Amino acid sequence: MSGYGFYRRISDAYYGHPNLSKLLFVCTVSGGGGLLAYSDSSPFRADTAFGDDIKRKKVVVLGTGWAGTSFLKSLKDPNYDVQIVSPRNYFAFTPLLPSVTNGTVEARSIVEPIRNIVRKKKFDVQFKEAECYKIDTQNKKVYCRSSQENSLGGVEEFAVDYDYLVIAMGARANTFNTPGVVEHAHFLKEIEDAQRIRRSVIDCFERASLPTMSEEERKRILHFVVVGGGPTGVEFAAELHDFVIEDLAKLYPTLKDHVKITLLEAGDHILNMFDKRITAFAEDKFQRDGIDVKTGSMVTKVTETEICTKERATGQSVSIPYGMVVWSTGIGTRPVIMDFMKQIGQGGQTNRRVLATDEWLRVEACDSIYALGDCATINQRRVMEDISAIFSKADKNNTGSLKVDDFKEVINDICERYPQVAIYLKKKQLKNFVHLLKNSHGEAELDIEKFKSALSEVDSQTKNLPATAQVAAQQGAYLADCFNRMTLCDKYPEGPLRFRGTGRHRFHPFRYKHFGQFAPLGGEQTAAQLPGDWVSIGQSTQWLWYSVYASKLVSWRTRILVISDWGRRFIFGRDSSRI
Amino acid sequence: MSGYGFYRRISDAYYGHPNLSKLLFVCTVSGGGGLLAYSDSSPFRADTAFGDDIKRKKVVVLGTGWAGTSFLKSLKDPNYDVQIVSPRNYFAFTPLLPSVTNGTVEARSIVEPIRNIVRKKKFDVQFKEAECYKIDTQNKKVYCRSSQENSLGGVEEFAVDYDYLVIAMGARANTFNTPGVVEHAHFLKEIEDAQRIRRSVIDCFERASLPTMSEEERKRILHFVVVGGGPTGVEFAAELHDFVIEDLAKLYPTLKDHVKITLLEAGDHILNMFDKRITAFAEDKFQRDGIDVKTGSMVTKVTETEICTKERATGQSVSIPYGMVVWSTGIGTRPVIMDFMKQIGQGGQTNRRVLATDEWLRVEACDSIYALGDCATINQRRVMEDISAIFSKADKNNTGSLKVDDFKEVINDICERYPQVAIYLKKKQLKNFVHLLKNSHGEAELDIEKFKSALSEVDSQTKNLPATAQVAAQQGAYLADCFNRMTLCDKYPEGPLRFRGTGRHRFHPFRYKHFGQFAPLGGEQTAAQLPGDWVSIGQSTQWLWYSVYASKLVSWRTRILVISDWGRRFIFGRDSSRI
Repeated sequence: MSGYGFYRRISDAYYGHPNLSKLLFVCTVSGGGGLLAYSDSSPFRADTAFGDDIKRKKVVVLGTGWAGTSFLKSLKDPNYDVQIVSPRNYFAFTPLLPSVTNGTVEARSIVEPIRNIVRKKKFDVQFKEAECYKIDTQNKKVYCRSSQENSLGGVEEFAVDYDYLVIAMGARANTFNTPGVVEHAHFLKEIEDAQRIRRSVIDCFERASLPTMSEEERKRILHFVVVGGGPTGVEFAAELHDFVIEDLAKLYPTLKDHVKITLLEAGDHILNMFDKRITAFAEDKFQRDGIDVKTGSMVTKVTETEICTKERATGQSVSIPYGMVVWSTGIGTRPVIMDFMKQIGQGGQTNRRVLATDEWLRVEACDSIYALGDCATINQRRVMEDISAIFSKADKNNTGSLKVDDFKEVINDICERYPQVAIYLKKKQLKNFVHLLKNSHGEAELDIEKFKSALSEVDSQTKNLPATAQVAAQQGAYLADCFNRMTLCDKYPEGPLRFRGTGRHRFHPFRYKHFGQFAPLGGEQTAAQLPGDWVSIGQSTQWLWYSVYASKLVSWRTRILVISDWGRRFIFGRDSSRI
Repeated sequence: MSGYGFYRRISDAYYGHPNLSKLLFVCTVSGGGGLLAYSDSSPFRADTAFGDDIKRKKVVVLGTGWAGTSFLKSLKDPNYDVQIVSPRNYFAFTPLLPSVTNGTVEARSIVEPIRNIVRKKKFDVQFKEAECYKIDTQNKKVYCRSSQENSLGGVEEFAVDYDYLVIAMGARANTFNTPGVVEHAHFLKEIEDAQRIRRSVIDCFERASLPTMSEEERKRILHFVVVGGGPTGVEFAAELHDFVIEDLAKLYPTLKDHVKITLLEAGDHILNMFDKRITAFAEDKFQRDGIDVKTGSMVTKVTETEICTKERATGQSVSIPYGMVVWSTGIGTRPVIMDFMKQIGQGGQTNRRVLATDEWLRVEACDSIYALGDCATINQRRVMEDISAIFSKADKNNTGSLKVDDFKEVINDICERYPQVAIYLKKKQLKNFVHLLKNSHGEAELDIEKFKSALSEVDSQTKNLPATAQVAAQQGAYLADCFNRMTLCDKYPEGPLRFRGTGRHRFHPFRYKHFGQFAPLGGEQTAAQLPGDWVSIGQSTQWLWYSVYASKLVSWRTRILVISDWGRRFIFGRDSSRI
């Protein structure tokens, strides 16, 4: 272990003063010998040579999105051997994707190479640009294939062993099996999608400029349809409108009156996850801007030139000629996750859409596999499932009847293990758990039936977390923190009481903190729903949006690039070159 | 005409003070009436409504490269109806393409939308994103097709009438019909090429990082071959070397020793159009950098994994395994130009590679067709072809014998019409034409035979212009200047005497001014060959390169973007995200 400690100190000195690196390597060679082969990578690789007694656990992370990258950035314990497998060798700041579609921000400004993050780690991290296509839980292996063709026209395939597997592969766009969507619509989930949409918008304008076009055809080509009134669809429609009004109208003056933007939403309102004030403001603003918002409109088919809808109000089927359609209706499951769910079977995987995990992000019925981000959802344990176990824990002497005060010892554990209790108390405006029990039964003693009836409505407050960047990033950081303190918490568990078993859980369960959500509406107007149901709308919120997004960017490089992109747009407008 | 003058003044006020636009439109409507349809485009469109007596000539420009864009920017006479047809809706600053391949500069920083230039013109200019595929000289029409598919899966086709046609379509890469080049090599002529190369370099590094790779395969994949030792190939090799050393070595530490860059050149030296000192410096620097320069190496075939060469020195055939190959060996003719040359036949089109024009850039044997840039070459008239005509012009009285002084009147015209004369004089270190005659025959009278013998070697100095951006840009500006002064010069011709005919040529012939040429060699070292055979090499020349290129960029937008890209590279390095 002394070798390890020595290395640790040198390494700290090295990272604090990168210029010492040459000196370090001299020390390495003269002191250790035989280490030249490692000298060009992180000095911590040498650990295994010195400290063989430390058995490093192999952690495999699948995905470099919000969850995977956040996990990687927060992981600090050098006793893991980390392998990252992802088809993308970069992390993309996805909330800015709608801005990329119109050139408000450049694609390259919102990406950060994973290897830039990897090389800052003080321990051994390997990145492989490949896609995982199969998870073998029996042998603890993941099977991967490179996204590139090899020289024989096939693809490279390989397997990676794991001790812990972190699945953070995200989701894909959900077409709800609507015919024609995959063939004709644009999605908006990846960098490439945004770049393709940008080219496609310019293509529509250039095509509409050709002398062969009839008026009718020209109108069709310049009809942009957005399907899905969620934050992404709404932001894209707003950004497109700004692009047309502020930039393209000047460059294609004869076309600007032909442009039409339509937003189709199957529900009753756009932005229905937001406060009603925001929805109303957005619908109103879009009407003023001339963006046609059609609610209650279900898309049934997309052909090359037409999009077919069924209107809920009238029951009629309508065909709308279009030039470009962007599909943004929520997330679907990646095939590899689907296969994995089939493979692990019914052991807790009741949700058919995403991987179910427990409150510690461990995939149900799997050993050492974690899932986070858009590909997973937390199966919050119901209070009713454990109600007798909870009662017994409080009933130390097995009397079968308890006073309210007897619950005091386990109250905190109940509230931590079942967060729906706290939400229910807040909703009912009750001060604490004791009040809940007193409320239904006064000061009388409770038996198990009375306890059940007091808590009977609590589980109705169980909520699934939204599939957002914010959730994924917090989950990644939470899991990395658990990994960092794994050894410590094995010895000194810090979590709530195990009601079904004995002792305590190793860690506190994951708890999501909502910091609010933005909905940019174009024309320097943004709506924000902040914690505590605060709502803020207008230009000042746009500036709040600018500062929050700039501060959340993953590196100083991307931060400066995005800010300079914004500046460039203010001064020169957006670029309309078709590249 | 008063309507026209009135508009001109208003228009000048409008362009001087864009904020007056609203006021202008009010004036327009109240003063002119019925003009609302034009109000969102340039006010000069209204000319035809007012000044029907001005018959506008239709000018069609094919291409938006250096020549076409320079022509468009310099054209000022509002009496033309200009149509631009090009498959690219932007101008690209091609000298920075090698920088784009490695992310020193972003692709979007070096392009400017043509419509940005168009909308600043004070007269009617239309742009169409399409490719010309046929020129019909009989009916004065060009046939074009859109590069986009239409809704029926076909392409839009249309014809455009012209009075004057300006062909500035550039060239394509020349493969010399080497098998496999089109299928496996990258070219470096278009923005898309540079973007593809950038992705491909990262692909090679990511593939080489996969665990399935053997050492041999890894070495092959990281072997980058550049074919062609001209300025583009050399600059690309140098940029790639910098990218690997400065950025990729840090991100792929285990791979950096596997990387190899080879530069293949069929001739004896790289950069053979430059001064020998530059060639020597470049070869020396590349050797120090570890870039393998192989001269006298002719590529005979390219397969998926190997490039086959024939070594001139030994006569041997060699197969080199490679991971990526960039082909940069000069320019070839576009198919449409080839077809056009066949169509116009032997009337002066002796050059089989590019369109031959006269010294006024008019395509030989064609009416009202001009060709400039890489798709054209000037067929400089030989003195010997016109020798008797020149003699007769000087011999006003038909004596058949002239004194040296009798030539004085036509000397300037001779020197202007046949620039090779001046080059010959300079080479022979003769002060002027009189000295040339005196030199060979003393003060004696000359007859036609003596005159011939005195000028017999002059034509050896006829030089073709290089296919560079500098030549194309000067030709575009020259031709626009001719167009601007067409009416004036029809009345008052300003060119040299017509030796074969009577009177004078309308315009001065095109004369190229060489401002020097740069060869960036990587590591902040650049070589420059300036006019007068000045040579400058080193880091100070790199700064000269920065300032010249920044100043030559087409707009303030691109200028600021490129400079900020350079700054970003200095601070953060180049991005290695594979997007």
